Amino acid sequence: MANDLLKGKKGIIFGALNENSIAWQVAERAHEEGAEFILTNAPIALRMGELNELAQKTNSDIVPADVTSIEDLENLFNKAEEKFGKIDFILHSIGMSINVRKKIHYTEANYEYYHKAMDISAISFHKVMKVAKQKDIMNEWGSILALSFIAAQLSIPGYNDMSDAKSLLESIARTFGYYYGVDKKVRINTISQSPTKTTAGGGIKGFNSLYDYADLNSPLGNAPALDCANYCIAMFSDLTKYVTMQNLFHDGGFSRTGVTDKMMHKLGFE
Amino acid sequence: MANDLLKGKKGIIFGALNENSIAWQVAERAHEEGAEFILTNAPIALRMGELNELAQKTNSDIVPADVTSIEDLENLFNKAEEKFGKIDFILHSIGMSINVRKKIHYTEANYEYYHKAMDISAISFHKVMKVAKQKDIMNEWGSILALSFIAAQLSIPGYNDMSDAKSLLESIARTFGYYYGVDKKVRINTISQSPTKTTAGGGIKGFNSLYDYADLNSPLGNAPALDCANYCIAMFSDLTKYVTMQNLFHDGGFSRTGVTDKMMHKLGFE
Amino acid sequence: MANDLLKGKKGIIFGALNENSIAWQVAERAHEEGAEFILTNAPIALRMGELNELAQKTNSDIVPADVTSIEDLENLFNKAEEKFGKIDFILHSIGMSINVRKKIHYTEANYEYYHKAMDISAISFHKVMKVAKQKDIMNEWGSILALSFIAAQLSIPGYNDMSDAKSLLESIARTFGYYYGVDKKVRINTISQSPTKTTAGGGIKGFNSLYDYADLNSPLGNAPALDCANYCIAMFSDLTKYVTMQNLFHDGGFSRTGVTDKMMHKLGFE
Amino acid sequence: MANDLLKGKKGIIFGALNENSIAWQVAERAHEEGAEFILTNAPIALRMGELNELAQKTNSDIVPADVTSIEDLENLFNKAEEKFGKIDFILHSIGMSINVRKKIHYTEANYEYYHKAMDISAISFHKVMKVAKQKDIMNEWGSILALSFIAAQLSIPGYNDMSDAKSLLESIARTFGYYYGVDKKVRINTISQSPTKTTAGGGIKGFNSLYDYADLNSPLGNAPALDCANYCIAMFSDLTKYVTMQNLFHDGGFSRTGVTDKMMHKLGFE
Repeated sequence: MANDLLKGKKGIIFGALNENSIAWQVAERAHEEGAEFILTNAPIALRMGELNELAQKTNSDIVPADVTSIEDLENLFNKAEEKFGKIDFILHSIGMSINVRKKIHYTEANYEYYHKAMDISAISFHKVMKVAKQKDIMNEWGSILALSFIAAQLSIPGYNDMSDAKSLLESIARTFGYYYGVDKKVRINTISQSPTKTTAGGGIKGFNSLYDYADLNSPLGNAPALDCANYCIAMFSDLTKYVTMQNLFHDGGFSRTGVTDKMMHKLGFE
Repeated sequence: MANDLLKGKKGIIFGALNENSIAWQVAERAHEEGAEFILTNAPIALRMGELNELAQKTNSDIVPADVTSIEDLENLFNKAEEKFGKIDFILHSIGMSINVRKKIHYTEANYEYYHKAMDISAISFHKVMKVAKQKDIMNEWGSILALSFIAAQLSIPGYNDMSDAKSLLESIARTFGYYYGVDKKVRINTISQSPTKTTAGGGIKGFNSLYDYADLNSPLGNAPALDCANYCIAMFSDLTKYVTMQNLFHDGGFSRTGVTDKMMHKLGFE
Repeated sequence: MANDLLKGKKGIIFGALNENSIAWQVAERAHEEGAEFILTNAPIALRMGELNELAQKTNSDIVPADVTSIEDLENLFNKAEEKFGKIDFILHSIGMSINVRKKIHYTEANYEYYHKAMDISAISFHKVMKVAKQKDIMNEWGSILALSFIAAQLSIPGYNDMSDAKSLLESIARTFGYYYGVDKKVRINTISQSPTKTTAGGGIKGFNSLYDYADLNSPLGNAPALDCANYCIAMFSDLTKYVTMQNLFHDGGFSRTGVTDKMMHKLGFE
Repeated sequence: MANDLLKGKKGIIFGALNENSIAWQVAERAHEEGAEFILTNAPIALRMGELNELAQKTNSDIVPADVTSIEDLENLFNKAEEKFGKIDFILHSIGMSINVRKKIHYTEANYEYYHKAMDISAISFHKVMKVAKQKDIMNEWGSILALSFIAAQLSIPGYNDMSDAKSLLESIARTFGYYYGVDKKVRINTISQSPTKTTAGGGIKGFNSLYDYADLNSPLGNAPALDCANYCIAMFSDLTKYVTMQNLFHDGGFSRTGVTDKMMHKLGFE
């Protein structure tokens, strides 16, 4: 599938680590659809990941940036401006919680770690847009996306303070979306994706159980990473110009399903 | 814009009346994107409208059908089957309320008209899908859409019993979506569109006021019909395969906006 | 527990059948809290149920009424007016679906039955309020409640067309709530109650499974009927005067829970 | 109105400053309903406010606490334990944003201030509950409330980063609510209150405009502080034991209203 949907469009993609990353798949698909972009991630993630391979494959530059650092973001957007002039899309696919990593129970949160989770996973999205708006780098009708999860709406044990981070992320999309829409016709949305077997997902306690549970309770099954990438392409394209400030569920129907027959069967309830 | 996004896809489009209709614009755009389809509307609408022109332009057949009649729908789907074998998409863009037309106040509803509004505007969507499913005419990963309005969530005076019809319509999408998803991987969604200056919209009391109000309170302004058509194209394409049972706002941000500065200014509140 | 919370208040309670009915419990609790009211149900339900016992216990009159008949409702409200003058609260606890009773699959709905389900379970709520408003029988700050279920938001197999009926019911509460609020300061809400072992609930295919599933996935467990009655008392009291047009979940947290540890354990996912 | 609804119940009330405060009104009403409680606020707020008067009137002790300090909270809960043993309710009515105070535009946020707003207005709620849970001070079926605002769902210019703080607050209620419900049958909810003329509300840029706008667009008008206090009483009482993890709108219908006729009239749209 390749339809030149993003022909002539330029962008920045945050958060690709390896080929399991949704951001990686978005980059591959965006390249196929004719987009040019800069890849970025934290210096430490660049060392761990295989981003060079992706950069080569998609003919992209890599600019390292700590997404919580305004200075790094300014450098990144300066590079983007030098290369592209204005840009059309941004993908934010970033989340990290030390409380999750250290398996600290939600009700026992370490607050230094909690603030850090908010900073990296949610407030960073505000920072990216603040710098983008200050530099006035987005073309009119540009599209900005962040990846979210339904733990922002529903309590899911094990997802820990990332639930709160995703709620905050969605709020930032909505609140910033008003201003960027009014001032520059830029649209801002979040995509709430099924549990996905990425390196980040793997860090959540009980991730496999959550994956299996969501799959059982989704009429179409869990949405794969490649399909999420396709949805991102649609949201970056001109087909969705008036969709803004929304949280869009890409989840095989999980968010609107109380229970499935398959789940009842598995539980022995019939 | 034309990217072969629907190349090889077949469908049925309900509800095009004239070039102001969203369904008309969807038909034009679907044709540009390589789809083939049957156009259908009620016999009376066919007499009033200019559907022949659209049929010619898009190289489509017209099959008249009263969408509340199972017999007519069976005939329509038989014709579709003869022509296409299986199909990939259906658009339902139909709404009518006699209480609205006769300017009967919501709290004074005539219940015969009320049932009629539900039947034509909402239950017809169930009927379309019942017949489609019985005939097993949809390809796997097919996409079915109906057009809705935010009066399904928020009370809007003047929209009358169409508010209830749209709530019912969205419920049918969700409930049927479960079964069609589980059985045949078919996805079903509604698009909640800005007030749009169509012939149907014009029947609502105070429509122009509602249009202006929504425009003032939408960060991107009201979404035009053509952009709604583009969104439908995205939802019919393979870019959105795992989106199902959702109500998708295509409204320039109206649904997530409490108030805009422009509105405050217009009200003289500063 | 009895705190004179409804002292001096008058009302009408629809839908008590036997002591398992939520409406029955509401009547008992309202009586304890000092309210006076009329009990009503369909003639056939009066024959099946034990309403005389409740009437005696709560010192109430029974007025039979087919809730789909405007004539019957007018007679009922006339009786209420003769007895009380104005009234302060109404409870609508009514639902019936022939498609459910006859175990007709949702996607195969009989449409005569479907319309009947909408009429009895949802449109009847509109009719009750239309007659009440025409007679101007509600005191200012009066409170009107109907009982709903989360199948209005989430697809739940087996709940069938009652899902759509509950969506319609909630829409009617919202849409009518605007007008009744503006004109007479009357508030209208729905309570979305946990699955409850009533005679009506028992008619749903797989009700026991649904009950057990919801109980497992609710942090506080399913809400009992008596607690639902208590919530209704709170909503009829002057403690909740500015709550209107809402759907209020009384469900032990089910509606905001993605999954519980107990559920994961039961599934063997850990 | 006084019905002994909270007779025998003990609690802690955060955030009363002066008689305009919702927390102040809750304290007065809780006292009337037979509750005993400790009043607490930040040392600086205690100097500015008139809490001694309230303490005398309600026969309560004051314990100063910086709600962001675990040490202060531990001291507070120790005092509560000494006095009451276990407690039954907690009210969190706290919000503060330096970005708001300094009129820094949302898109230009100072991030030190932003983190501070999250810490004081939202994460403090987590801290209160963490300490309460660690001390196991809540009785079963206890009730914990925080006050929120619809800017958590809808973009409202001028509300600034408090929008994000309220989203985070509601997420914390939901996520913590799961654990506290499962472990101790404690329920946790937020009340989303109309704009209210408190000292805190007065700090928001354009607050009066927002107040007037919400009033115009609410079928019952804005909810007064005293009615909000009454709603809190209902939520602390045993009438609402199975309501948990919810955000409850107490707003005269604003949250479910697209537009009112009054608003259309004021805009000159008819």
